[in-house]
Amino acid sequence: MGRILALVLLLGLAAPAWAEDGHEAWLRYHPLPAAQIARFAPHTATLVTGKMSPTLDATVKELRSGIAGLLKRAPGGASAVTADGAVVIGTPSSSPVIAGLRLNLSAAGKEGFVLRSLGVNGHKATIIAANSDIGVLYGAFALLRRMQTEQAIDNLDITDAPRLMVRVLNHWDNLDGSIERGYAGASLWRWQTLPAYRDPRYREYARLNASLGINGAVLNNVNTSVNSLSTGYIEKTAALAEEFRPYGVKVWMAPRFSAPQEIGGLKTSDPLDPQVRAWWQTKVDEIYHAIPDFGGFLVKANSEGQPGPQEYGRSHSDAANMFADLLAPHGGIVMYRAFVYDDPGKDWHLDRVAEAYRIIKPFDGQFRDNVLVQEKEGPLDFQPREPFAPLFGAMPKSNMAVEFPVTKEYTGQGVDLTYTGFLYEQIYKSDTYAHGPGSTVAKIVMNQKLTGTAGVANIGNDRNWTGSIFNQANWYAYGRFAWNPESSARAVGEEWTRMTFGNDPKIVSSAVAMLMGSWPAMMDYQSPIGLTFQELDSANTHYGPWPWLDSPRRSDWADIYFNRADAVGLGVDRSHTGYNTAAQYNSPLKEQFDDIRTTPEDFLLWFHHVPWDFRMKSGRTMWEELQFQYSRGITGVEAMQKAWDGLKGKTDDERYMAVKQYLVMHHRDAVWFRDASLAYFQTFAKRPFTNGYKPKYDLDYYKKLPPNTAPPD
Amino acid sequence: MGRILALVLLLGLAAPAWAEDGHEAWLRYHPLPAAQIARFAPHTATLVTGKMSPTLDATVKELRSGIAGLLKRAPGGASAVTADGAVVIGTPSSSPVIAGLRLNLSAAGKEGFVLRSLGVNGHKATIIAANSDIGVLYGAFALLRRMQTEQAIDNLDITDAPRLMVRVLNHWDNLDGSIERGYAGASLWRWQTLPAYRDPRYREYARLNASLGINGAVLNNVNTSVNSLSTGYIEKTAALAEEFRPYGVKVWMAPRFSAPQEIGGLKTSDPLDPQVRAWWQTKVDEIYHAIPDFGGFLVKANSEGQPGPQEYGRSHSDAANMFADLLAPHGGIVMYRAFVYDDPGKDWHLDRVAEAYRIIKPFDGQFRDNVLVQEKEGPLDFQPREPFAPLFGAMPKSNMAVEFPVTKEYTGQGVDLTYTGFLYEQIYKSDTYAHGPGSTVAKIVMNQKLTGTAGVANIGNDRNWTGSIFNQANWYAYGRFAWNPESSARAVGEEWTRMTFGNDPKIVSSAVAMLMGSWPAMMDYQSPIGLTFQELDSANTHYGPWPWLDSPRRSDWADIYFNRADAVGLGVDRSHTGYNTAAQYNSPLKEQFDDIRTTPEDFLLWFHHVPWDFRMKSGRTMWEELQFQYSRGITGVEAMQKAWDGLKGKTDDERYMAVKQYLVMHHRDAVWFRDASLAYFQTFAKRPFTNGYKPKYDLDYYKKLPPNTAPPD
Repeated sequence: MGRILALVLLLGLAAPAWAEDGHEAWLRYHPLPAAQIARFAPHTATLVTGKMSPTLDATVKELRSGIAGLLKRAPGGASAVTADGAVVIGTPSSSPVIAGLRLNLSAAGKEGFVLRSLGVNGHKATIIAANSDIGVLYGAFALLRRMQTEQAIDNLDITDAPRLMVRVLNHWDNLDGSIERGYAGASLWRWQTLPAYRDPRYREYARLNASLGINGAVLNNVNTSVNSLSTGYIEKTAALAEEFRPYGVKVWMAPRFSAPQEIGGLKTSDPLDPQVRAWWQTKVDEIYHAIPDFGGFLVKANSEGQPGPQEYGRSHSDAANMFADLLAPHGGIVMYRAFVYDDPGKDWHLDRVAEAYRIIKPFDGQFRDNVLVQEKEGPLDFQPREPFAPLFGAMPKSNMAVEFPVTKEYTGQGVDLTYTGFLYEQIYKSDTYAHGPGSTVAKIVMNQKLTGTAGVANIGNDRNWTGSIFNQANWYAYGRFAWNPESSARAVGEEWTRMTFGNDPKIVSSAVAMLMGSWPAMMDYQSPIGLTFQELDSANTHYGPWPWLDSPRRSDWADIYFNRADAVGLGVDRSHTGYNTAAQYNSPLKEQFDDIRTTPEDFLLWFHHVPWDFRMKSGRTMWEELQFQYSRGITGVEAMQKAWDGLKGKTDDERYMAVKQYLVMHHRDAVWFRDASLAYFQTFAKRPFTNGYKPKYDLDYYKKLPPNTAPPD
Repeated sequence: MGRILALVLLLGLAAPAWAEDGHEAWLRYHPLPAAQIARFAPHTATLVTGKMSPTLDATVKELRSGIAGLLKRAPGGASAVTADGAVVIGTPSSSPVIAGLRLNLSAAGKEGFVLRSLGVNGHKATIIAANSDIGVLYGAFALLRRMQTEQAIDNLDITDAPRLMVRVLNHWDNLDGSIERGYAGASLWRWQTLPAYRDPRYREYARLNASLGINGAVLNNVNTSVNSLSTGYIEKTAALAEEFRPYGVKVWMAPRFSAPQEIGGLKTSDPLDPQVRAWWQTKVDEIYHAIPDFGGFLVKANSEGQPGPQEYGRSHSDAANMFADLLAPHGGIVMYRAFVYDDPGKDWHLDRVAEAYRIIKPFDGQFRDNVLVQEKEGPLDFQPREPFAPLFGAMPKSNMAVEFPVTKEYTGQGVDLTYTGFLYEQIYKSDTYAHGPGSTVAKIVMNQKLTGTAGVANIGNDRNWTGSIFNQANWYAYGRFAWNPESSARAVGEEWTRMTFGNDPKIVSSAVAMLMGSWPAMMDYQSPIGLTFQELDSANTHYGPWPWLDSPRRSDWADIYFNRADAVGLGVDRSHTGYNTAAQYNSPLKEQFDDIRTTPEDFLLWFHHVPWDFRMKSGRTMWEELQFQYSRGITGVEAMQKAWDGLKGKTDDERYMAVKQYLVMHHRDAVWFRDASLAYFQTFAKRPFTNGYKPKYDLDYYKKLPPNTAPPD
């Protein structure tokens, strides 16, 4: 304790201003105001436990540190309820007290929990009960979250359970420590020193995931190295699994499809070849021998240069089912990506956004029961604004899962403040009309035999995990929407804000307004009126704007392919007079999207080639509206800057300054996007700039700017 | 303070075992024992300052936090000495008190300092005086170091000044965040978010450097990207310079020689071409406009594929002098690397270790006064054991600087515990006989018009900076030897140990024994009897052993080129009957090294092809001695493990466990090195294994092992 007091002195003196480095993230157990302590302390005096396990040890540790931090007094421990204020934790099999209560835990399912305020032995008690140890841990995090966000805990009657079974983060981490589309330092996985060295961050990472209910981590990039499957790496992976296990986080792997040839010494990787299947059988058995609770494989095949079944004249279902059959006896699952598109070279006549539906839909009903068909949330590629992917309304006989961006590849490169919770809500509540009105994407993916979701992680070895503090909100939101796809982005954002910055009303209102305004602002300055994919640049940073970019190799990797700017207008004709991609949606959407008059203006340039003088609902012409929306995006960023400036002194200096400095970059990016885009499009529109929207420089200036500095693949 | 108390509670409860993450490194201001506090507190009651500056602000901040942490009481502040216990800090121009003392500060020079215990106004005072603000800061660190290591501060009369002018770390950091030969995470420089976002670590890094007197950082890899020279990167670099400036750390750059063509639009990069010089002139002026105290250029040219003057028929001095002439008016310096060797392809008849001398020596006397010719410490490439580079004894008319490894490329890959302080001492005290006996490398490099050294950094964004705790000792030792090349490795290691782990005698004796035993152990298991460069592998990780490796492209990138194992014996004949490289040394070394009977046994296989049955001083044959030394290395590692195990409970659990786990890997590496090497060499020696040294597996087993997992270039 002497050491700790010294540390206090040191902290107090070396940093006269209050500074936090963000490492705690949302599990920030700082003392609540006295009134809240008085409210919660009487209910959290003692932890009553039964038979322990690693997961229950973690539960007790969490409750002890959380209560001690929030309420400034650590709870005692007991094995029975002998006074008011007991928190009883356990399952009917681990805790005699819980067993004696004969609670109905059926609605909690395998991973859910029950929080109840009950009298036990004549004393007031709070029950955290579940059918599994991990359910108990999830319940403990829920109780702590209620205190952190200043919600009552004195009259609890809550049953909560995840609506999806598989809730994984997919790390696009390469074995050399780099991360594709990672903006938060190097990979957390220190492959060189595994399995011997157990970095304490492995457990810290698992703990943060468990606090959200995330139950799996795909450790490696879908653009994968075959080495992940080597015996040495399986040993390393097993060590990570061991560190994650108490927190209920399973490890998964993205396997390289051509491994039988590359390291197996076979002449083929044909998924129907008996030797190939035997090789994979041996490999799968080796993995499960080392990692009995291994989650399964997440497969990218025949997409963007990855090997796949088509090399052997086999189908995507052949590939998925081969893995599925081998994994099934172990309880393993295949997540098979529908993010596939052909590579016919430069002269392509197809619609890039129609590809997943065109290629994957024919296999509906042909995938095994332990296959999740994993489709990105939109039909293109993690854009700021896309309609939901039509495949979700077109695969009634398959288990579908949404793949969401958590990292901000096209949406600000980890720098710009853009809250993906907004996107998750928009997509999940989109109505596919697959079984009539109300067939939202959420309902579709929740009502299957096997359910799940994958999020492309934004996590690295930066001290604050995600590069910027607000990026933590996206990890948080991904986990909360994975738990319940029908969550509210605003409610989740408020929860995150209270946990991360405290409950001061001004912080809460300002930060939530920033979160909720961020995605609309970005849609305005990157994707006005539904224009999209203008972030492609020659350096492959995906950090635009480069609207003039053509691609020497293939037309669909060019911005001009996606804007089609010409003397007539702007946007891609996906109606029956063009690609006819609107027809991939169910009625009444297909008719609505097919007609320029009924298409929602948010997607007008997505579905139609719109004349510059087309009259918008605002009364402005399309050219005027384009300028207006670009500029509204900048106004939105400025509103965030103003809101944040108003919080000076309300939060610690270190996080305050970091967010402020990041918003400077954000504003620069937004202005650049508007000005470069308008300078280019005006060369086609040939109409005057309105309302002071004239770009500061001429087009040539923007064309000569180098690509933004960003980490490469 | 409420927040801080809560943090205490949290720390105390969430981590019942004492845990430190190593981020503080050696500037660990934890409370000293009561007796020491009683000894030091009377002398550190008040800080007396004059006119302030950013560097003096940093000095006061450091003294306040250091004294508060070590002695549990922060000093007060004052502008005059009015009571006992004043610490007076400043220069004669900033502090009237210092000026009034009329101290002789001439021996302190530009960057040194004076520590004096004096009576001032009839009160006991401690003076930290210097001719420059940075000297004052260095003096403050020296005073704190004395307290941390429990040395008296009550009767001080110390003048100390750096013996070398340029003391830089060279970061082999690439602009994409990766680090060549980096084993501690990603680059500290977050180029993407510079110049807007100022990561607090930038100052923390500069502060750690300042505590050692390191006064420069070459920010980018010598295998350089031309983008560093772009206007955008110069702005980013200027932001780093601004963050470092209060701590006296200048930024430097490794420029790409072919920049005039690559980004200048010129047809040549000929250093004598007027347009090329004009382009560089403009670029240098741009840099100094943004960074008035820019340090200079560190140049790798015509080596390992880097562009250079030879493409234009120009010499190394032409290249160095072009840069030198442009930098000189700004006070800038060129560090020109002598690590050059030709690339004649597969059939090479030269001695690779003779190259730097052969190529660079002819230019002695032709380099400008602001050029440091920077030669690696040995003639080969950062090997565990090399004789000092003969160039140091052969360039009387040039300013020579030693380039030292801090990162452990060939010497354990950041994993194995190997203390480079041992190496620094060995090299600096080596006698070149350039001006008769006593012409040590240290004397040579200290007695020049311009002096300096460069260390290849081992620093990344890992929380503990260097990947493992003991790697911090190498950064520390590099800085201390840069300050004084005649330092003692043991004394420096003990200082580091006390600052890092505390003054418990058992910790001190055990950790110092580990440090001092580590390099000899590694020389035994990687470089017995002077055998060298056996760490080359096909994956270019430099993490051996691969003694059987041939190189398809060039003979000197092959292990067999460096071991020459055959039926007769082992080692490379560099005597007059072979390459005659021994002749590069001055007498009497050249004669000594030329003769197998007088060559020190540590370098026997370096200089001679030695028969398997050659009788060593130990009485063993060379083949027996080889086995003995390999095995002695393993014994050395086991001794480190035992010493560390004995410290359980003496240090915090987190650092204890990390070191313990790292030593497991270290032991594995040492055993592998011995067994694979002996299995291979025995196929030539064809003599029995002695004394239980038979490898566990046959040669084929070791040949089939994959390269160790290590970060790539």
